[in-house]
Amino acid sequence: MNQQTKNCQLPSHSDRAIGIFDSGVGGLTVVAALRHLLPHEEILYVGDTARVPYGNKSQETIIRYSQEIVDLLLQRGCKMIVAACNTASALAVPTLENFYKVPLQGVIGPGAAAAVKATRSGKIGIIGTKATVASNAYSQAIQTLDPELTIISQACPLLVPLIEEGWLDDEITDAIIHRYLDPMLSQNIDTLVLGCTHYPLLKKRIATLIDPNITLVDSAENCARTVQQILSEKNLATSQKKDGFLHLILTDRSEGFLNLAAERLQLHVTSLETLSLH
Amino acid sequence: MNQQTKNCQLPSHSDRAIGIFDSGVGGLTVVAALRHLLPHEEILYVGDTARVPYGNKSQETIIRYSQEIVDLLLQRGCKMIVAACNTASALAVPTLENFYKVPLQGVIGPGAAAAVKATRSGKIGIIGTKATVASNAYSQAIQTLDPELTIISQACPLLVPLIEEGWLDDEITDAIIHRYLDPMLSQNIDTLVLGCTHYPLLKKRIATLIDPNITLVDSAENCARTVQQILSEKNLATSQKKDGFLHLILTDRSEGFLNLAAERLQLHVTSLETLSLH
Repeated sequence: MNQQTKNCQLPSHSDRAIGIFDSGVGGLTVVAALRHLLPHEEILYVGDTARVPYGNKSQETIIRYSQEIVDLLLQRGCKMIVAACNTASALAVPTLENFYKVPLQGVIGPGAAAAVKATRSGKIGIIGTKATVASNAYSQAIQTLDPELTIISQACPLLVPLIEEGWLDDEITDAIIHRYLDPMLSQNIDTLVLGCTHYPLLKKRIATLIDPNITLVDSAENCARTVQQILSEKNLATSQKKDGFLHLILTDRSEGFLNLAAERLQLHVTSLETLSLH
Repeated sequence: MNQQTKNCQLPSHSDRAIGIFDSGVGGLTVVAALRHLLPHEEILYVGDTARVPYGNKSQETIIRYSQEIVDLLLQRGCKMIVAACNTASALAVPTLENFYKVPLQGVIGPGAAAAVKATRSGKIGIIGTKATVASNAYSQAIQTLDPELTIISQACPLLVPLIEEGWLDDEITDAIIHRYLDPMLSQNIDTLVLGCTHYPLLKKRIATLIDPNITLVDSAENCARTVQQILSEKNLATSQKKDGFLHLILTDRSEGFLNLAAERLQLHVTSLETLSLH
């Protein structure tokens, strides 16, 4: 078989996989939202579990790690890249999107647009990791859309470890959520952006703890809708009709939280690979 | 100046620095204990803040990261190496000590020996990261010294993020400590090993929450005494009489927790360097 014949057997461009990455397994919330909207798309997911979390690391390091993963996803033939990680979306995507030809979509823009659409009072709360909050990426994206809006941000570094510990319906987690959110709730926000891809796993619980009139903006859901739109606009949506695969690449073995997340999100993982990035 | 003259200006072997490493900044508790015992020793500390934490990563990855750091410390001329990280001590030191000529000391052995010495009832509790607890390193070290002892282990993955958040004297932290410790306390342990170098920062608080008759074994203090003994036995103790420097190398910038730890531990950092390991 010569090279040309081999190439003929590759899937057509639109039938190639969507590449999704996160610092760990939290980005599976974006995969779940995408899978719901686009059941036939093949998905290749990289979780950088050898270096998780990104949320307390510097921009330089987060750009370097993200670039290594995007290069891997492109080597594997992905047709578009989704940064399913708020920290990488805030700190690496604005730099990296200048260097790649394929569409590179983060979660910040879709979340910011949904928050602007949702607010009535003009007061929006944002929660995320230390790095995401310190980057002001959500604030800037929201205020570019509407400079009149008031934004109150709060870094919540304990929420990811609590979610990974599996304490999802738990009074200690409730107390920590209150500690983080009460100051912004007392300022009468009417919209709260869950600015970390782990947080949708706490969405129902957060909803029971705050005023039911506050809209929770889930960056995973909004990102998935934007990806659907990009694939459609660029004629990149798959034509195949069978269920798409979900291939997971982890940079380190990660048992506990992967199982928890897959179960909670009702995700079927087709295959799992462990790969060292350097 | 020729090479020979240059070499003459290097410090004598015993005046070279002790190399200490940790996945992050938590190992500064070992530095503080060492500094107290050995004020004249030069100390070179590497905190792998670009890849912190190690506690939920695989043995293969922890060995690779540890080896890169030991190589760096040896390139910088260190006379002995201390793994000031329970996870690296449990999972990497037993492999790495076969490959290096300089003394390589972890924190597990000294902590285990102190626990065996302290217990009267024969029931010892151990707390640590997921990886440290799963490794059974403390249990094995303790049972090698006395196979009759009963050991109860508990992984406490939320304690490091709580300490790094600075919630040291805090009722939420108390509730989480109770959640983790109550099952082993109900089994009447009389000795509790703080099997993570972050935990000494919570030692006083833990002491107020449990039976005062329970002995807390601080792996940092015990490790520092073992290092003192090795330097003396191998004629590696420094002869200089001035205060030793503390040079910190971090693999990523890390502001908040470094300041908190240095302040709580009353450590004077002579100089700080940021260095990417790969």
